[in-house]
Amino acid sequence: MSFSAFAALAAKQPLVPYQYEPQPLRPQDVEIEISHCGVCHSDLHLIDNDWSSSVYPLVPGHEIVGTVTAVGASCALVPGQRVGVGWQRSACLECEYCRSGEENLCPRQEAICVGHMGGFADRIRMDGRFAFPLPASLESAAAAPLLCAGVTVFAPLRRWKVRPGTSVGVIGVGGLGSLALGFLRALGCHPTAFTSSPDKREAALSLGAEEVVSSNSVRELRPLGSRFDFLLSTVPARLDWIAYVQMLRPNGVLCLVGSPPGVMQILAGPLLLGQRVICGSDIGSPSLIRETLAFAAAHGIGAQVETAPLAEVNAAVQRVRENRVRYRMVLTR
Amino acid sequence: MSFSAFAALAAKQPLVPYQYEPQPLRPQDVEIEISHCGVCHSDLHLIDNDWSSSVYPLVPGHEIVGTVTAVGASCALVPGQRVGVGWQRSACLECEYCRSGEENLCPRQEAICVGHMGGFADRIRMDGRFAFPLPASLESAAAAPLLCAGVTVFAPLRRWKVRPGTSVGVIGVGGLGSLALGFLRALGCHPTAFTSSPDKREAALSLGAEEVVSSNSVRELRPLGSRFDFLLSTVPARLDWIAYVQMLRPNGVLCLVGSPPGVMQILAGPLLLGQRVICGSDIGSPSLIRETLAFAAAHGIGAQVETAPLAEVNAAVQRVRENRVRYRMVLTR
Repeated sequence: MSFSAFAALAAKQPLVPYQYEPQPLRPQDVEIEISHCGVCHSDLHLIDNDWSSSVYPLVPGHEIVGTVTAVGASCALVPGQRVGVGWQRSACLECEYCRSGEENLCPRQEAICVGHMGGFADRIRMDGRFAFPLPASLESAAAAPLLCAGVTVFAPLRRWKVRPGTSVGVIGVGGLGSLALGFLRALGCHPTAFTSSPDKREAALSLGAEEVVSSNSVRELRPLGSRFDFLLSTVPARLDWIAYVQMLRPNGVLCLVGSPPGVMQILAGPLLLGQRVICGSDIGSPSLIRETLAFAAAHGIGAQVETAPLAEVNAAVQRVRENRVRYRMVLTR
Repeated sequence: MSFSAFAALAAKQPLVPYQYEPQPLRPQDVEIEISHCGVCHSDLHLIDNDWSSSVYPLVPGHEIVGTVTAVGASCALVPGQRVGVGWQRSACLECEYCRSGEENLCPRQEAICVGHMGGFADRIRMDGRFAFPLPASLESAAAAPLLCAGVTVFAPLRRWKVRPGTSVGVIGVGGLGSLALGFLRALGCHPTAFTSSPDKREAALSLGAEEVVSSNSVRELRPLGSRFDFLLSTVPARLDWIAYVQMLRPNGVLCLVGSPPGVMQILAGPLLLGQRVICGSDIGSPSLIRETLAFAAAHGIGAQVETAPLAEVNAAVQRVRENRVRYRMVLTR
């Protein structure tokens, strides 16, 4: 029985219908019938081979929600269960990172869409230890982006101990930034949103921002002074990083979850004098994905999504390319 | 009764004998008769006004060892006690940083030599809460550099939880780097030393390094791969920071205690993918100074020093300018 998917057959090509034979179901595996799959900017980078890691035919899609249809002998999931899957499809579960609950740092980790077939498909088979039961209150379309975008912004809030009273800024009000604002509001923070789009100002306030500032206006940035304990940058854009570091208070952290192109320029002085930190964060471990889902359910947080039928995947991908989606595109079957 | 010191009367000038009337002894104050004072590169920056913060006449010196000669009514020190003083002479002791044991981040902190008279002198008066009794086993000349250079490298080892098994590199084998190697060896680590001076290789091994690598040779750096959990950079030099970040393991930290001139160039990708960190560290709090002194005493660690009489201060400063000191210059009276 073959699986039906949409695949890029070469870099930068439109997706075409594509059938493939799944790997045999191993003891640890789960088979999922996919109902929803988010479209992430990372999918576009994979289609275009921007990271020189793509393997074609390439089936994108790593924000998957669906129903368990089959399980291997040692898989703890049960048929009929609704589950979600994010970027990571496996890890060695033996190395020091896996054994300290940081499977996302495992040197032998595998991604859903790199050398394996992703979620723009009717089904997927993969290690069931990287599929997560969804809390009943989460609606599937709004939950799909939690599996990648959601945990990507939630994980650094936990790692860097963001809590009520932490002064936080979120750079970018897109798929990641909109979720970050919701999480922060639920955590008891009053985040400042930075955006280069004047038309997103009202939306940022409704998403949970306390105030909105232009992300590239020196005139608006300068008066902020050294105000933030934590700045989360969700944008893949060149910004004035020297100015952003100077907006940090002593012990403040600038954490990147969006990857700016080219070289970043920074100054050492403000890092030393205020013991400031620049760092990155990379998706999140299975335990953090479970916590992201539980936290979202507890606080009624879901992504704001547009949906499109999987059959219209190329039009949906194009809308993501053009940054026209508010705030996350989810394909449905 | 006036104090006798050596002062720069203007930027980049030689030091000249200088008498000044001390501030009245406040209740919290201590008066110390100085026996030893280290010469730090920061003193040179202050003399030259490199940071645009210098106030002339400027008496340098912030690695002070001496004997208590007088105390204010509320000072806990006692005359005759041997004490040490570092960069910081006071803080508000009321702000959130002071009240969480991070007085070195206090926005109202004062430095010994900025707007106040430093340790190239026979005496000093200052807030006794920033003077620290020296463990008896520490020899005064070797202990003086612990007050600034020592705590500067020890504090980030504590903050970033360096412990046996942590893979550590120390960039620079000078006053700071030589102390860092000693601390790391005592902590049970096997540090790699990076130096641009081939003639420091043997010394680095004797100071505690397990291996020595050229700090600016791509040929020597590249094979190191992603090996380090913690890299401590003690040098005020331009280095290939992109290469050093790539030498970090997942969750690895590059911590700067030396301030490179100009703009640092870094890449976002390696920060995100391995959740790597770039940060700075700034001297250390009083509790960390006490711990540095106790740790040094417990493990028999002192700076390797050259000494010179205070009267020959200009020649001593010149040797520091020319990087000819192995590894720390200490003035004696």
